[in-house]
Amino acid sequence: MVEIVSLTTPASTASWQDRAQAKVQSTFSKIPQEWRLSNEQLNNAKTTRKLTGEFFQSFLKPRELEITKYPSVVLVERIRTKCFSALEVARAYSKAASVAHQINNCLHEIMFDQALARASELDEYLSKHNKTAGPLHGLPVSLKDQFHVKGTDTTMGYIGWIDTYEGSKDPQKVHLVESQIVKELLSLGAVLYCKTSLPQTLLFGETVNNLIGRTLNPVNQNLSCGGSSGGEGALLALGGSSVGVGTDIGGSVRIPAAFCGVYSIKPTHNRFSYRDTANTNPGQNTYPSSVGFLSTSLDGLQLIMSSVLSTKPWLRDPEVVSIPWRQQAADEVLHRASAENGSAKPGELPLKLGIYWTNGEVEPQPPIRRGLRMVVEAVRKAGHKVVEWNPPSQTTAKRVHLAFLLADGAHDVHTQLSLSGEPLLPNLEKSFKLRDPINLLEYQKLTLEGRDYCAAYSDYWNSTDDDGQIVDAVIMPVAPHAAVIPGKYYHTAYTEAINLMSYSAAVIPVTLADKTVDPYDESYHPRGEVDKLNWEAYDPEIYHGAPVGVQIVARKYEEEKVWAIAKVINAALLAFTKEMKLS
Amino acid sequence: MVEIVSLTTPASTASWQDRAQAKVQSTFSKIPQEWRLSNEQLNNAKTTRKLTGEFFQSFLKPRELEITKYPSVVLVERIRTKCFSALEVARAYSKAASVAHQINNCLHEIMFDQALARASELDEYLSKHNKTAGPLHGLPVSLKDQFHVKGTDTTMGYIGWIDTYEGSKDPQKVHLVESQIVKELLSLGAVLYCKTSLPQTLLFGETVNNLIGRTLNPVNQNLSCGGSSGGEGALLALGGSSVGVGTDIGGSVRIPAAFCGVYSIKPTHNRFSYRDTANTNPGQNTYPSSVGFLSTSLDGLQLIMSSVLSTKPWLRDPEVVSIPWRQQAADEVLHRASAENGSAKPGELPLKLGIYWTNGEVEPQPPIRRGLRMVVEAVRKAGHKVVEWNPPSQTTAKRVHLAFLLADGAHDVHTQLSLSGEPLLPNLEKSFKLRDPINLLEYQKLTLEGRDYCAAYSDYWNSTDDDGQIVDAVIMPVAPHAAVIPGKYYHTAYTEAINLMSYSAAVIPVTLADKTVDPYDESYHPRGEVDKLNWEAYDPEIYHGAPVGVQIVARKYEEEKVWAIAKVINAALLAFTKEMKLS
Repeated sequence: MVEIVSLTTPASTASWQDRAQAKVQSTFSKIPQEWRLSNEQLNNAKTTRKLTGEFFQSFLKPRELEITKYPSVVLVERIRTKCFSALEVARAYSKAASVAHQINNCLHEIMFDQALARASELDEYLSKHNKTAGPLHGLPVSLKDQFHVKGTDTTMGYIGWIDTYEGSKDPQKVHLVESQIVKELLSLGAVLYCKTSLPQTLLFGETVNNLIGRTLNPVNQNLSCGGSSGGEGALLALGGSSVGVGTDIGGSVRIPAAFCGVYSIKPTHNRFSYRDTANTNPGQNTYPSSVGFLSTSLDGLQLIMSSVLSTKPWLRDPEVVSIPWRQQAADEVLHRASAENGSAKPGELPLKLGIYWTNGEVEPQPPIRRGLRMVVEAVRKAGHKVVEWNPPSQTTAKRVHLAFLLADGAHDVHTQLSLSGEPLLPNLEKSFKLRDPINLLEYQKLTLEGRDYCAAYSDYWNSTDDDGQIVDAVIMPVAPHAAVIPGKYYHTAYTEAINLMSYSAAVIPVTLADKTVDPYDESYHPRGEVDKLNWEAYDPEIYHGAPVGVQIVARKYEEEKVWAIAKVINAALLAFTKEMKLS
Repeated sequence: MVEIVSLTTPASTASWQDRAQAKVQSTFSKIPQEWRLSNEQLNNAKTTRKLTGEFFQSFLKPRELEITKYPSVVLVERIRTKCFSALEVARAYSKAASVAHQINNCLHEIMFDQALARASELDEYLSKHNKTAGPLHGLPVSLKDQFHVKGTDTTMGYIGWIDTYEGSKDPQKVHLVESQIVKELLSLGAVLYCKTSLPQTLLFGETVNNLIGRTLNPVNQNLSCGGSSGGEGALLALGGSSVGVGTDIGGSVRIPAAFCGVYSIKPTHNRFSYRDTANTNPGQNTYPSSVGFLSTSLDGLQLIMSSVLSTKPWLRDPEVVSIPWRQQAADEVLHRASAENGSAKPGELPLKLGIYWTNGEVEPQPPIRRGLRMVVEAVRKAGHKVVEWNPPSQTTAKRVHLAFLLADGAHDVHTQLSLSGEPLLPNLEKSFKLRDPINLLEYQKLTLEGRDYCAAYSDYWNSTDDDGQIVDAVIMPVAPHAAVIPGKYYHTAYTEAINLMSYSAAVIPVTLADKTVDPYDESYHPRGEVDKLNWEAYDPEIYHGAPVGVQIVARKYEEEKVWAIAKVINAALLAFTKEMKLS
């Protein structure tokens, strides 16, 4: 028998639609009048395919453009050296985020007032002490709407969570809880100014919920921005943030990064603190979600990860493993290649990279195939080794992983929905139909199956030393498509399999889908129903201009290494692309 | 509905009693004739209260005595410098273990032939290469009978596992699987010569099963040797091993160490590899068992831990965290105190230790109370700080932890018992009655309760910095009694609570129960039924001479630190005891 426990009596007799509308209005009201766009501008945005770049930048003044064009590391340096005040940086990013939200619907919460007040304090601090308050002094950091910030809602897209603490009215908690990583970011000098959109349940590769509706891909509005950290991907792509914090249980920082053309890192799950952070079904801890990061630059990812780990999060969250940021592990990789163009240094061991063209179940569409080829050609040209990667089947990994995500029979999700009476999204009805949780013996049996899969995968990795060198990392698709047409995300194994192993993974942008070089391939014979659906979903016209990203996967707790490998590959790719253009 | 799945058709039509007897005989037959004791000697052992020390040593020749008296580190050094050959060391320990088994019933498996052959090879290696095969070259290491060694049974006390691989007849696996840590020990030069006894289910603080019956405490045969790594504790106390490998999910290396008067370390659960090691209900991975170590010396523990971690177990077992042995963390502690007597060094920060006299639910019996007082006096006298420790209640920790151990409704245990038809032990009937597993939603809710408990405990730990210094480690009882009268182990919270947190913990021996200074305290008013049972179970006559140990608990992944603190406390205690005797 299936029973839903309501956490509280519904707080309001208003319909969920009315409550959602009031919340959206209340958020909108936090955008200062002078930053509000006209109806004409808004309509213009609706009919513009590509919002990023010139279109977006047309709303910013030169000084705002100058500030928001810098990657995180330069921005922090410019604040430290007083080229920019923290206040003007906070204001520029608040304005950029407000424009992004108005044209792209990517925010759940706006905290501009708090951000400006804090930035002023930071300026005073720097002026008074002649030193920064920390390595992130003045850096605007955007947050996925799972992280609790004092004084602000965390709705996670649930209407029943408005004005509550995760659905509870406990006055000791509502708007008073602060996620540990939020505390850490503040202690490091970060400025928190907005919280970004995500999908209902978090377990979806698109971003849509009953609260704000859908967030589209700002690089190509035919497509989804991805999910679940979709608002982050969109905001970063537009230029409304230089670094943001998301989470990833099945691809949720990697997918939006790849779909929107920015960088990300999904760490091993217990490298960063999830303490006091809202989540879906947090009692499922066999394959937990990772806190991860997205940025417009790889250096931005290094800055935020090394800074957060410098606070020793494990002393406050016992679930975090006590491994500090080991720059040495990154430097060992960087030492092997030229910083300028990623080429292997003479006398040093070149990188040895695996290439995983396909999982053999669902074939990546033409733009992704081409993206993978570009990366392989670039790193080979740079003097590194690339070998075929044939690990245990992702089909097993996905089946086991998905079983855990759905093990509770969607009880958690339905408990949250029942708070307001809002419905499950149509796209999620099949997966998240309320049903009995699976039997514990089955759950524990699946645990062993997952454990054995991870061990077999690790054994395969160790077996790659035929030339005396083990594979450093593997180049893989993030998804079988460059972004996704809403409603057509059929296959998530490319990311989910990596979560099963809790491997570290980085995403880098590679190229853009191009109808002239990525035609539909009529000759491909799909291997099965899902492969067919995915293959036929590719339309060169619709996809034209969509970002193509790849993931680079290393083993557990290798965030430093995978970051450095991403740096090398990124440099090799830029050099390769430049040369191609010149030739 | 409850259903037991038989793994295989019973392999034999013989009764389980006959099969057990045949197995015990087969093991006994591996003891060379010249090491077999006479009936008179055996009867003499049965009526001797204390088997350790003189009684045991009377069976050894002077050279055997000389070899087996040395702690692991000295032994390895003497083999390296060719004072002893690996072969004579293996032979001396094989003989010692064979005597131990005959008088104390502490072995499941005997592998003397393999050990002697390997020792000869090691001697040849040293002679030929003039260097050792590794840091454990020639060191005899005993193993709890969960670890798979090629060519040998692992029964874990189950009659249905005789001549199988964990109950399976798969010819690809039977006697062919090798636990990862076994591979590591062999690669380091260790000599494996026996596997030690443990209780049915592993989840019991005494050592008794249907295969070999009961292992008593060799220091005081009125009492149990503890469990579940009970055979290890007994063998080490006698002198039949200097270092052994056990496991601990609720106290299983700490309890036998404390009860038998030896040292042990229970690491955080994923510091050492459990891969390919037999276990009870391995699919329960929320609070998993730790591989841990027991030794006659603290230096033996450091030797085996640092050696095993030098092989980077995480590269072969993805469940192991990639933290090498960080001697620096140990040295930072050692630097603060005199190596000779543990006294705080002038100008250095003294240790700050918590003292947990009681959990407020079940009071430690008089010998344990006195043992704790001795430790506190000794470290205070040595110039270190000791503060009262009042963390969140162990009652919660024990309830949550026990719920996980029993969550599968004892299905795993009954599946193994059904292979042979052997019965559950009477002492375990209540806990391990076959029943439905708990509901998954309840299981996941308990996961959150455990998570929150650990976070609250960590918060409490952080709150101890009132004098600007945080507590380094906490001195605690291992159990509310010094060893236990068989059948009277009523309360396991003192160890189980530490497993909930997966903290690192060391056990050191402190003193012996003494009827003249540890009288029964009639004035004590028990707090409840279990407290009353435990208090009344104390009998000064029965307990006289039983070892009293304490555990020293540090946070997660602090094996190096807790080991070093144990060194300091041990030195302070020895100096204190010496002084007391002199005065």
